[in-house]
Amino acid sequence: MGNHGSAAVELELKLRSEEDESRSSRVIAGEGRLGPFVPPFNFATVDRGVFRSGFPDAANFSFLDTLQLRSVVYLCPEPYPEANKAFLESNRIRLFHFGMECSKHRTGCVVGCLRKLQRWCLSSVFDEYQQFAAAKARVSDQRLIELFDTSSFKHLSHCICI
Amino acid sequence: MGNHGSAAVELELKLRSEEDESRSSRVIAGEGRLGPFVPPFNFATVDRGVFRSGFPDAANFSFLDTLQLRSVVYLCPEPYPEANKAFLESNRIRLFHFGMECSKHRTGCVVGCLRKLQRWCLSSVFDEYQQFAAAKARVSDQRLIELFDTSSFKHLSHCICI
Repeated sequence: MGNHGSAAVELELKLRSEEDESRSSRVIAGEGRLGPFVPPFNFATVDRGVFRSGFPDAANFSFLDTLQLRSVVYLCPEPYPEANKAFLESNRIRLFHFGMECSKHRTGCVVGCLRKLQRWCLSSVFDEYQQFAAAKARVSDQRLIELFDTSSFKHLSHCICI
Repeated sequence: MGNHGSAAVELELKLRSEEDESRSSRVIAGEGRLGPFVPPFNFATVDRGVFRSGFPDAANFSFLDTLQLRSVVYLCPEPYPEANKAFLESNRIRLFHFGMECSKHRTGCVVGCLRKLQRWCLSSVFDEYQQFAAAKARVSDQRLIELFDTSSFKHLSHCICI
């Protein structure tokens, strides 16, 4: 993935429908497929229909296909690679590109802010941040999360459960 | 939590209904509640409606309440503590107790076997195991996961997406 390497991060979002569920079941049951699925590095479910991972490459596409993604949030300043763009287009997945310059572990910062909106205590937010950031963990990122002001999101309180 | 301490593990399962979703939204939005939520140690979403965590105590109950759990799978050989039993009963949550003697990181082993049923490649299964096991990671646990035979579960292939 060239410039993106392990430093690149990507946050993936999806809202499922009943039709999605049915299709997802068929895909995960492995219909018409033989090899194992290869999730991207640091892949995890953040909440219902919201996933996080390191930057995926072509080896991960068949796994990503099982998630029935609707949107991808890409947080690196670098342009989105053509191969990944083609995968999104062929699956009608929208790309939201917000190039973050300020943090070391971008996805961890965004998820940390989401956890604050979900009213997690800071120690649990930091525990999760550190678990995924590993060697990329930075006090400055945790300070960013701590200072994130949730008060201006109160009008969205019913939308953050996703 | 007495004998349970950090060695105890608990896997929590839930299947949501539309009614659950509505109630969950209200709870997470914080209606009628002031303090922050305290997720149990090592809490994470495994898949839609399936959660994992270290053994919870009373400080975690208000957070667990937001998950609208229907069942708890408890994997330690020790008896389930009375305070936790009372929480489950008051929320109509069923307890499934399977005391595992053989592994060091029990929840990690069960989730690893689930990932095999979901056809994840072994390197991704082990990566996730190690991320949660940390100092408790054992090669013997990973060998157990590697040897787990999924072939006898083929008739359940449409049930493992949960």
